[in-house]
Formats: sequence, C-alpha cells, structure tokens
Amino acid sequence: MPTDIHTLQTRLRDGAISRADVIAQAAQHAQQPDAHAVFLHTTFDTAAQVAKAADAATRAGKPLHPLAGLPVSVKDLFNIAGEASRAGSPVRSDALAATADATVVRRLRESGAALVGRTNMTEFAFSGVGINPHFGTPVNPADKQVARIPGGSSSGAAVSVALGLAVAGLGSDTGGSIRIPAALCGLTGFKPTARRVPLDGAFPLSYTLDTACAMARTVQDCVLVDSVIADQAVLPVIKAAAGIRLAIPRQVLLDGLDDTVARAFDRALGRLSAAGVQIEHIDLPELAELASINAGGGFTAAEAHAIHRHVLATRREQYDPRVASRIDRGAAMSAADYVDLMRARLDWIARVAARIEGFDAVTCPTVPMVAPPIAPLVADDALFFRTNALLLRNTSAFNFLDGCSISLPCHQPDELPVGLMLSHGALRDAQLLGTAIALESIIKPAA
Amino acid sequence: MPTDIHTLQTRLRDGAISRADVIAQAAQHAQQPDAHAVFLHTTFDTAAQVAKAADAATRAGKPLHPLAGLPVSVKDLFNIAGEASRAGSPVRSDALAATADATVVRRLRESGAALVGRTNMTEFAFSGVGINPHFGTPVNPADKQVARIPGGSSSGAAVSVALGLAVAGLGSDTGGSIRIPAALCGLTGFKPTARRVPLDGAFPLSYTLDTACAMARTVQDCVLVDSVIADQAVLPVIKAAAGIRLAIPRQVLLDGLDDTVARAFDRALGRLSAAGVQIEHIDLPELAELASINAGGGFTAAEAHAIHRHVLATRREQYDPRVASRIDRGAAMSAADYVDLMRARLDWIARVAARIEGFDAVTCPTVPMVAPPIAPLVADDALFFRTNALLLRNTSAFNFLDGCSISLPCHQPDELPVGLMLSHGALRDAQLLGTAIALESIIKPAA
Repeated sequence: MPTDIHTLQTRLRDGAISRADVIAQAAQHAQQPDAHAVFLHTTFDTAAQVAKAADAATRAGKPLHPLAGLPVSVKDLFNIAGEASRAGSPVRSDALAATADATVVRRLRESGAALVGRTNMTEFAFSGVGINPHFGTPVNPADKQVARIPGGSSSGAAVSVALGLAVAGLGSDTGGSIRIPAALCGLTGFKPTARRVPLDGAFPLSYTLDTACAMARTVQDCVLVDSVIADQAVLPVIKAAAGIRLAIPRQVLLDGLDDTVARAFDRALGRLSAAGVQIEHIDLPELAELASINAGGGFTAAEAHAIHRHVLATRREQYDPRVASRIDRGAAMSAADYVDLMRARLDWIARVAARIEGFDAVTCPTVPMVAPPIAPLVADDALFFRTNALLLRNTSAFNFLDGCSISLPCHQPDELPVGLMLSHGALRDAQLLGTAIALESIIKPAA
Repeated sequence: MPTDIHTLQTRLRDGAISRADVIAQAAQHAQQPDAHAVFLHTTFDTAAQVAKAADAATRAGKPLHPLAGLPVSVKDLFNIAGEASRAGSPVRSDALAATADATVVRRLRESGAALVGRTNMTEFAFSGVGINPHFGTPVNPADKQVARIPGGSSSGAAVSVALGLAVAGLGSDTGGSIRIPAALCGLTGFKPTARRVPLDGAFPLSYTLDTACAMARTVQDCVLVDSVIADQAVLPVIKAAAGIRLAIPRQVLLDGLDDTVARAFDRALGRLSAAGVQIEHIDLPELAELASINAGGGFTAAEAHAIHRHVLATRREQYDPRVASRIDRGAAMSAADYVDLMRARLDWIARVAARIEGFDAVTCPTVPMVAPPIAPLVADDALFFRTNALLLRNTSAFNFLDGCSISLPCHQPDELPVGLMLSHGALRDAQLLGTAIALESIIKPAA
C-alpha cells in the first residue's frame, strides 16, 4: 500500500522500514506487469546508494530533508546530467546526454531525493490523454479489469506515484498535464503559479503556459515538493473550514459531467457545506470566451510550431501523427494573431481576477469524466480529439489565467478516481494550498 | 534662457519670479514662430490657474512638490481626461475624448504639475526623425540658420523643453524616442526600465518595447519626473568619478560617427578620464547580431501591425505612407517567427547582461550624427529611411536589452547638440542615474 511522505517519515523514525527498503521494493515493483511503460529509463541502483547513504546519515544523527533517500520520478522532458531527454519521442532518439541537471532536478537532488527514473509521457507533452504510440501507454492502476488511460501528459509520473514506485512525480502542466493524471489516478497534483518554478533544462511545449510541478499523495506532500523545486517555502494560509468561501462558476466547468464525476463532486460539496464552507455559484462568463480566444490553437500550437517546425520538416514520419497535427495548427497563426492573443489574455485575466478576488478558491471537477478505456481512444481519432478536449477543458482555464490550481481526490473507494480542483489567480499559492489543506480531509476518499 | 527645475526653484524661493510668470512667459512664447508645430493643443489657461493656486499655496506656507505649478508638456499619445489622443495622426481625428487620465498623467497632475498642452510627434511614434507630414514638423531650436529635425518620435516634447515652454516633456521611448530628440536638441532624456512606469492610457506602438518617460534639462530633473511617473523614488547611487567604470563596446555603436559627434564624444571621454573615470573598450559582439535578429521588423513592426491592421485596411490613405510601410513589414511575420524573436531576445539579454555586469554603465554617442536638415529628408524616401535607421541604431539596442538609458548633452556652445548615452540592464536605474549625476558636470556644455 503506497503511503504519503509524512506517513513514511513516521515509519522511518519508528524503524519499521528503511529508505533502502523503500527503494528496493520500488525497484522490484517496477519489474511487474502493472508498471509496464511507466519508466523509459530507471536508475534504481543509484537511488539505492542515495537511500543507503541517507539511512546511514540518519543513524549518525544527522538531520535530513524529508525527501532524502526517498524515491522521486522525473518526467522524460527534464534534463538529468548524463541522460538524454527524449520528451517521450523517438524524434529525439539521437539527442545527446544532458551535461547538467535542470534546475528543478538539481534542487530535488540537493534535497537528497533518490531519483529512480525517467517517466513516460505523451509525446512532447502535447495531449491530456497519456497515450504514447512509441513507448506504450502506462495503464491506470485504479481499474484491475479494464485498461484505462492514466491521463497525461505526465502519464508515467502519475502511475509511478499511484503504484508506490515514487513518493512524488516531477512533471509539467501546460494545460493540465499534472492535474489530469492526478485526478484520473486518484492522486493530488499541484500546479503552482508558473513563474515560481524555473523551466531551464525542461524541453518546452509552450513558453507561455508551461509549469514545472509535481504530483504526490497529499497536499502536504505537494507543498513539500513545491518548496524544493521552487526553492521557496510557501507557508500555506490555513483557515477553519467555516471561514472558507468557494466559488463555483456556472459556465462551462460543470457541463457534461459523467455520472461518477457528478455524484462525487456533489457529495464533496455536500460534505464541505456540512463542514461550514460557504459555497457560492458565480457567473464567470469569461470561461465561455476561451474556445474562441484559442480557436487558432492558442499559445501552445503557436509555440510548439516555433519549436518543432524545422525538425517536423525533415522528420515528420517519426512524430505521433496526432501530435504533429496539433503542432501544425500553429503554422497558420500570424505574429499579429499571436500579439492579439497575448493582449486578449491579459484582458481576460484582469476580468476573471476581479470576479474571483474575494474567494478563497474557485472549485470544479478537475476533469468531467473518469478515466476512459485505452483501446477505443487508440482506434478512433475523432474520439481521441474529442476526449482530449474534454480532459483539458477545466484545467487549461487556469493555465490561461496564469494561476495556481490543485486537484484533490474526492471519490469513494468503490468508484473510479475523481478529482476536485481548487484554483486561484497568479501568486495566490499560499492561500490556495492553505485552503486545500483545510478541505482535503473533508473530501478525501474513505480509507 | 530656459532653466532647469532646481534653478527655477531657487528663483521662486527668492521671489524673483512666480509660477504664474513662468506659465505666462511660456504661453506667450508658444505663439512665436519658433514654437510652430510644437503643440497640437494647448491648455495654458488651465495651467495658469494651476500655477496661481500653487503660488498662493506657497505664500500661505504650504509645502509643495517641486513640480507644482510648473509647465509640463504631454506627448499626444497619452490620455488626458476630456481630450482626444490622436498620437500624431489624422487617422484618429474622430477619436473620442478620453474619459480618464493615463496613470502617468494623473500622477503628474497629482504632483501639482501644470499641464500646458499636447505635443506633436511622429505619427504613431513610429520613427526617430520627428517629421510629421500632417501637422508640421517642430524645428530644432539649436540652429537659427538651417531648419533641422528635432528628432523623434517625441519631437514636440523636445522642442517644448528646449524653448522653455515646459520644464519637462512627458513622452515615450520604444527605440529611442526620448533619447534621440533629447540628444539632437541638447537636452537630457531618461528611459527607465520599461516595467517601472505604467503604460495604461498611452496609445501603444510596441507592447514589448514601449516605455513611458520624459526629457528635461538635467539628470536631477529627470530623476524628479521619473519619481512622479513611476510613483517610486529612485535613490541614485552616486559614486566619486574616480570609482566609476564605463564600458565602450567596440562593435556597431561607434561606426560612422559624423565629425561633430566623434569630436564631442572623444572630448567627453578625455574629460572623464582626466577626472579619474575608468574607461574600458569591451567586446560586445551581440550588438552585431541585432540587425539579423530584427530583420523582419522586430517587435515594433509585428505589434504595430496587430494594432493597426484593421484600421489600415480601411483608412490607409490617411496614414503617413512611410509609417504605413513600416507597419506593413509586420504582416509577413508568423507567430512562430515572433515566438523565436522573443526567445532570441531573452538569450541575447542574458549574454549582454553578463558582459556588462561589472561596469557602472555602457557609454556611446546617443546618435551618430547631429540633427540633419529637414528638407532633404522630406524629399527623399531612401535618405529618410537610411537616416532613421542610423538615428535609432544606438538607442534601440538598449530597448532590446530591456534596460535603462540616459542621454546627456556633451557638446560645446559653438557645436550642434551631441548626446552621450549611459546605459545598463533592467532595473539598474538607481546605479545608472547615480553615474549620470556624477558625470554630468564633467561633460556638460560650457555655460
């Protein structure tokens, strides 16, 4: 049974387990069928040495960072010195090994984290589904009968944490790539305000929207990892539940929920109300503008096209055709369209920020559906793109807001995982995390 | 003889003159032939009331801001409540009156400044020459025989200060539009780090490069106005001359200087050396990259095209054809080109910043020529564009750097005005202004 970092710390202090044991178990489990396609490359041997050194340091009475010697996975798009960053694509099969760690990787390493491997992902992080036709698709562990998508793009990151192969998965979130797989796999995924975490050494999808961040098992674990990769301890502003005001936008975010998601979200709201949380439905008509503002493919298509256009011209056959077609949308955008888009975004952010200012967070389901089966999505392009758009719909609004956003599990043990998302504007991270800490235990799945 | 604000304060305290006198003299002078085309609209009557109220307040012993009751001009692109902002163009002849002041205008007004009128400018601020075919071209007061350009785009702003019609001219600097006319008219022009001063209520040329700023007669006057419009008092870090290190880049900035500029710049360097300033020639090969980085017209063409494309489609005949042709260059740029340009700029800034880090400032002539005569430039498109490119060459490098930059007069009384420019990177304003204060008296024109 995978455990969160804080629980693991207790067991480590009690001597019930060692860090070396944790790594050894993870290394063994990573060989099992349910871990298929989770990692593109593993480094459990090095991780074991790091864990042993941390165990020895503990025995010697040295104070350690809570992450020291614990397994952390790294999405394939982050540079790790000595390893090639393929970003989930054979297009980069001849990429040279990185000569230095990405700053976020370096910070994790300096905290003492034991890096266990590079996790699989949607090619170039450009979809929320998590299917990778080149390296296989990690299977969502929540359903033992049907092979369902893990969500993406940080697909392997999510399954690595869900299976207990890592206590946290470093990933990225451009339109929901941390929060979607967290929601579909029953984890907690936090997308901080993008500017708080450096992106150097991360293969880019969208310069404007990319956020380096992580998923874990609890809000406190997310706070811990965030403090490391941002090199800045956010002190969550924790209020009593009865003092918290949540806004539920009437527009877009509640459209077309599947039955499980609708039921779980309603149940969570009922529990929150019972705990004294004030929940208000608000008008946020700006949400309905997003489809037209981003009709040309938005920042991601334009920026991905800038990044890939030269390579696409010569190696198109190596791309997942679905990814290539999404990148191609950026080719039709003019500089003036892009400039207009930047201005439209600033105006949109100002209007949304004014509407949500007085609330502790905006809430909605992270994704409107539970994880769908993999096979039909592999077979049917139209279904794939329709599903992808739905998966990204709610999460991407808060990337466009330049905000912070967290997905918390709110399903029952007999349900497929459902995420409840709490979000706010730029640099409201401390308030958002405090709110999430206060509400997490109210909505969390029964043990 | 126009005087700087600090000298004027002394005369006001001595009772040698009143603020009302200053405004009355300016109002009268604004009617003279040498002030032709400086203003597109004047408000000396209102300014006189503001001045009288300030005089009365002084007599009543009330403390006043140093700008209180003194004449300040405003470039035609800033919103002033109740006035239309035409940005120097008949295209905006049917623009509605602004309902609110631009923030920078409001701040000037709140300091007590007496706003005397809207100054002429290059149409839409899109050239450094200062010729306006619609409303006439203000003549540079430095030459009584030949009608020479004032420089632009803040052409009227410069002449308003040079003639003493205003103690400071609020303008904007996207590629040199404050510093070029300051240099050609013998004034001091300071372009702060762009983000320090709000741009709301200013008709945009380039969202990326625009800076709201001002020109005046001394560095201290520039510091004073900057503290008002930025709502933030920069405390200049003033060192002794012997502790100051200046860098002179070997590349580009010294190419093709005319004789007067070369002589004045060399003389200034000689005086600085004699005063103990350390002057080092450095390699800054990045300067030679700018022409190719901006070959497609750069941010300004792309962003101006985004701003004007719809109006240009229906009212092209109302634009200055030279301005329209520069805007048109942005039409050919794709979103991917624009994204590449943003990335190239960030990379360029990092490399330049590293090279100049240890210096107090980079120095070069503000423009490589003295003000050329107006008539040939009106007659000859090729000469106009060649001259415009030369005028902008040195100044625009520091807009691209996202830096701060100031032009100081360094000519002799028998020479046409020449500017010496001191520049540094983003948010080095306090260091730059302190350096400028320390060096100003060493290089200034003999009285």
